[in-house]
Amino acid sequence: MSAVPDFLVDLALRCADAAGVVARRHYRTRVDVDVKADASPVTIADREVESAIRAILIAERPDDGILGEEHGSQDLNAEYVWVIDPIDGTKSFITGRPLFTTLIALLHRGVPVLGIIDQPVIGDRWLGIAGRPTTLNGAPITTRPCADIAMATQAATMPFHQVEFAMTQASSRYMVWGGDAYAFGLLAGGFIDLMVEAGLQPYDWAALVAVIEGAGGLITDWEGQPLRLGCSGNVVAAGDPALHAQVLTMFRDRR
Amino acid sequence: MSAVPDFLVDLALRCADAAGVVARRHYRTRVDVDVKADASPVTIADREVESAIRAILIAERPDDGILGEEHGSQDLNAEYVWVIDPIDGTKSFITGRPLFTTLIALLHRGVPVLGIIDQPVIGDRWLGIAGRPTTLNGAPITTRPCADIAMATQAATMPFHQVEFAMTQASSRYMVWGGDAYAFGLLAGGFIDLMVEAGLQPYDWAALVAVIEGAGGLITDWEGQPLRLGCSGNVVAAGDPALHAQVLTMFRDRR
Repeated sequence: MSAVPDFLVDLALRCADAAGVVARRHYRTRVDVDVKADASPVTIADREVESAIRAILIAERPDDGILGEEHGSQDLNAEYVWVIDPIDGTKSFITGRPLFTTLIALLHRGVPVLGIIDQPVIGDRWLGIAGRPTTLNGAPITTRPCADIAMATQAATMPFHQVEFAMTQASSRYMVWGGDAYAFGLLAGGFIDLMVEAGLQPYDWAALVAVIEGAGGLITDWEGQPLRLGCSGNVVAAGDPALHAQVLTMFRDRR
Repeated sequence: MSAVPDFLVDLALRCADAAGVVARRHYRTRVDVDVKADASPVTIADREVESAIRAILIAERPDDGILGEEHGSQDLNAEYVWVIDPIDGTKSFITGRPLFTTLIALLHRGVPVLGIIDQPVIGDRWLGIAGRPTTLNGAPITTRPCADIAMATQAATMPFHQVEFAMTQASSRYMVWGGDAYAFGLLAGGFIDLMVEAGLQPYDWAALVAVIEGAGGLITDWEGQPLRLGCSGNVVAAGDPALHAQVLTMFRDRR
């Protein structure tokens, strides 16, 4: 895997800065909420944040591809593809909880090599870059050891209906509800041990990969395969690789 | 209902200030987690925060009663009783999510007349006083209109198993997971419409009453009775009194 050039890291950070300006402007203003085809909520903040990021990328990297949650995709076969979730955790955003994040990821030949999880209200920014230690607000972070699910704290965005989710929920020591990407950031920082989520979209998972791997954790699909465009979006992330292996074995044994 | 003397409001605020100093010291430090008899987690932060509050109350109000989550109760028949949850949302605390709160309530002849919901890391402080408008960080707040559950955003700390919870979850427009007292504060501020929770303890609900009522909302048990020591702890809170009535009717019709 090739190293990520510093100027692309700088560009990603500037995109996150621009996104934060827009998101903060709409936070706790009781924005109107529209409903998308999949019944999920969307607001003017989602659309304007993505537009702000796209404007920078199109000006500076016209040959790169872009995949965004709100404004579609282009040039997905380019060497570099940016993947954007302008407001991950829209329900947190519209209910005034400062746990929503902007997600910016960079794929190089399909491999996630950079990820930013940015919470612009309280100022938490996770930065993951392939081959480098993950940082939170500039300070390196690592996952914590937890090799056994019986000792694990598991977080989940919502109760998923899949049996794989129920299995892990029943086995974990503690469940924490309310997740989204912010919880994956906490997993990278050693405060959560396990997350099992279903049906994530590329803009949901793309930024998580470099953040979690650069902190010593693992994130794959439920078969243990790396996350790539076109995957199921069924995701298991663990801070301790031994816990990740244990959960994959649980999934395999039930099939 | 008699007015709350200003010196008791001032005392409650100073208790919240002292609590915040202790809570911030332990936040995101990977504190050890013990397990209580009811399997819920507890940390040194819970115990030290409550001790800090009790030290102030015992010094200044030796004749008042105190009911705290961690260090027990005394003089519950006193004219004034303080009800303390040092760390509401301990799971949020131990996973590094700045949504835990310190709850301080005052009962006068059994009636909740003052409530503070304080988040000391990001600095969100709700203050409710009987007969006065509720404030968030000093600014008055109000709930929002939402008379029909079909349009409501409901929040919940976790998926409760009771049928009343399932009924409302199925009827609400949006569910937001992860709650605790912080979510009740957001309800008071007009960002969440409905919460239905089961089996709350007095230290969980006592501070919520004045906060929600002073913002124009209603909070009762599932039969519509006011929350008092000895109640079931099955709680329904709504920002719009019409929504509260609608939910009580749903509960009554199924019985």
